[in-house]
Amino acid sequence: MPLITLSKRSAVEPFHAMDILAEANRRRQAGRPVISMAVGQPSHPAPKAALEAAETALKHGRIGYTDALGLRELREAISAHYRLRHQAIIDPARIAVTTGSSAAFNLAFLALFDAGDAVAIARPGYPAYRNILKALGLNVVEVPVTAETGYTLTPASLERAETKAGCKLKGVLLASPANPTGTVTGRDALKRLATYCDSRDIAFISDEIYHGLTFVGDETSTVEVTDKAIIINSFSKYYCMTGWRVGWMVLPEELIRPVECLAQSMYISAPELSQLAAAAAFSAQAELDIYKESYRTNRDFLMSRLPELGLPLASPMDGAFYAYVDTSRYSNDSMEFAKRMLAEIDVAATPGLDFDPLEGHRAMRFSYAGSVSDIAEAVGRIAAWLKQD
Amino acid sequence: MPLITLSKRSAVEPFHAMDILAEANRRRQAGRPVISMAVGQPSHPAPKAALEAAETALKHGRIGYTDALGLRELREAISAHYRLRHQAIIDPARIAVTTGSSAAFNLAFLALFDAGDAVAIARPGYPAYRNILKALGLNVVEVPVTAETGYTLTPASLERAETKAGCKLKGVLLASPANPTGTVTGRDALKRLATYCDSRDIAFISDEIYHGLTFVGDETSTVEVTDKAIIINSFSKYYCMTGWRVGWMVLPEELIRPVECLAQSMYISAPELSQLAAAAAFSAQAELDIYKESYRTNRDFLMSRLPELGLPLASPMDGAFYAYVDTSRYSNDSMEFAKRMLAEIDVAATPGLDFDPLEGHRAMRFSYAGSVSDIAEAVGRIAAWLKQD
Repeated sequence: MPLITLSKRSAVEPFHAMDILAEANRRRQAGRPVISMAVGQPSHPAPKAALEAAETALKHGRIGYTDALGLRELREAISAHYRLRHQAIIDPARIAVTTGSSAAFNLAFLALFDAGDAVAIARPGYPAYRNILKALGLNVVEVPVTAETGYTLTPASLERAETKAGCKLKGVLLASPANPTGTVTGRDALKRLATYCDSRDIAFISDEIYHGLTFVGDETSTVEVTDKAIIINSFSKYYCMTGWRVGWMVLPEELIRPVECLAQSMYISAPELSQLAAAAAFSAQAELDIYKESYRTNRDFLMSRLPELGLPLASPMDGAFYAYVDTSRYSNDSMEFAKRMLAEIDVAATPGLDFDPLEGHRAMRFSYAGSVSDIAEAVGRIAAWLKQD
Repeated sequence: MPLITLSKRSAVEPFHAMDILAEANRRRQAGRPVISMAVGQPSHPAPKAALEAAETALKHGRIGYTDALGLRELREAISAHYRLRHQAIIDPARIAVTTGSSAAFNLAFLALFDAGDAVAIARPGYPAYRNILKALGLNVVEVPVTAETGYTLTPASLERAETKAGCKLKGVLLASPANPTGTVTGRDALKRLATYCDSRDIAFISDEIYHGLTFVGDETSTVEVTDKAIIINSFSKYYCMTGWRVGWMVLPEELIRPVECLAQSMYISAPELSQLAAAAAFSAQAELDIYKESYRTNRDFLMSRLPELGLPLASPMDGAFYAYVDTSRYSNDSMEFAKRMLAEIDVAATPGLDFDPLEGHRAMRFSYAGSVSDIAEAVGRIAAWLKQD
């Protein structure tokens, strides 16, 4: 009997961090003392106010579909957040609540681009961008971000990439703070990029899911510099709500209805319990800023310890919660390095190949969103392991 | 300044039921006594065991990403469900937990089909199929299901459709029980269809999200007749967990890894709290069967009352919780009929256009998943309204 025929686009790369997470979970269930620095996931629980809102909703009992663009109260809370934090007036009608930022990327790509369109992303960068774009038949233009470009995308680097790829860009996606580089792109650079995109009729997608986690530099939201960009944010990182799967988009007027129609069919709605919890999370800044300080402690520790261990930093670590390091002193096969580290000392981290198909074989990403004691313990194990190696 | 350029594929049809839901929510918030028969959503809360499991998880605090294919305990519980209910041994490794069945459809389509591939669906049928397929660049072949085909897809109707469309089918998607027709496709018909698809190298996707809600006929799962199909199911309908956004797929071996890789990037994971609650929902059959009896009461009532009101049934109502009726005595514009009914008597129902772009202008779908008293009240209002009309 014939086998199932797979689609060509089913051949996406694995998200290695998720494979490492699955393996780490298997080892943990088998009783191993695993410390995960693999996935960008806070070890802190969701804020108390969010947990309480969820508990109250559970007592009420019925958790149903919401409007496809989300609960009105959450959209209003997000609008208030922009007023408070960014002095920007955003009509709640322009806010779409999404099932994590994952859904937001998918919706943005579907609403903006047709198969074959070219979209620029940073290399190294978040692998799901590349994987989703490819699955949707889009042409991924990876633009190297290096010390010379300030580890971010610039008009000049985009022009070089267009020339090299021999195509006209339809979209540009930039994360600030960035994963895995930690780059924070400041107001002036953001404004230059937004203006450039606008003048070339390029859609600008601004990934701000690590907002709230900037340690060096100013944290500008793209809403402050243009109303033509698509802004994507999430409750997963600063708000410590990864497993709740709730994020949002700020949309230019003309995208609201297309995104609503796509979301109705592709997602129906984001989980209601998570939406109710998320609306309460905005009140928890004091609690969340304490968590942020624990990341800062981890960051300071890793910035000094990793280079001492022969793992120099490959980028700035100004924001988000990742150390991206050069492993070439020990290994030019980051996949094998990651697997061996997990197998031998039960420390999970992500091979650079996830973020950079060209140079990532000699890089690793360590998430420092874990507890201070876990990060210290993990680094202790790594130090002993590398010495022995 | 130039406007944002939308993609061609962003021009998907709205899911009118969701638009009606949004309008019904606005009216309800404005204090109107709205009764919704528009969306396929039980009025009952999630089962007690599920709510308790969620509460316990909230006390534990940290709700995180799970493996992309879902929590092991939930995958094992789903496997046990097939053993118990369908006498089928399904390796938990073949089960993918998804963010509602919506994610399952998207993942199945991406893993199986490339842009341009032809996929057959029933007309009338669930509009999100058509909308997601189109957004992914697939060629939707709508196959009419009528009294002559037993309101289901058959090898003969697929062959006719292929000839008419002048293309070779790559996939077939069938729901049983079906939305909106209520058709339950029995074991022999399912087996014939699966065998036909297998012999022609056509992927067979079996939508079983209304399983548990069969009132007439036997409820066969496609797992009982083939291990080559993709089975999709959900906790939304029988298990009363719409807003939790959790569903699952049973995958043929060769699809497990491609679906895992796509899910890692496109969804990361389904909401963890919902997964924990869903695992507990399997123990709640006694409670859920009481709810099912309330749907049966509604069904019996509508089966006699709607035709009396001049709204004859357009299909069998053997399963799921919908009455699909012919409105031509009153209106050949189901969109306008639905809007007017909501505006004038605060009863929301879904225009047939959602389900059937060709014939749906003279059909409406009424969901009877609401409470017995609400359905009685709604029908009372409709009766008075139609008399006056």
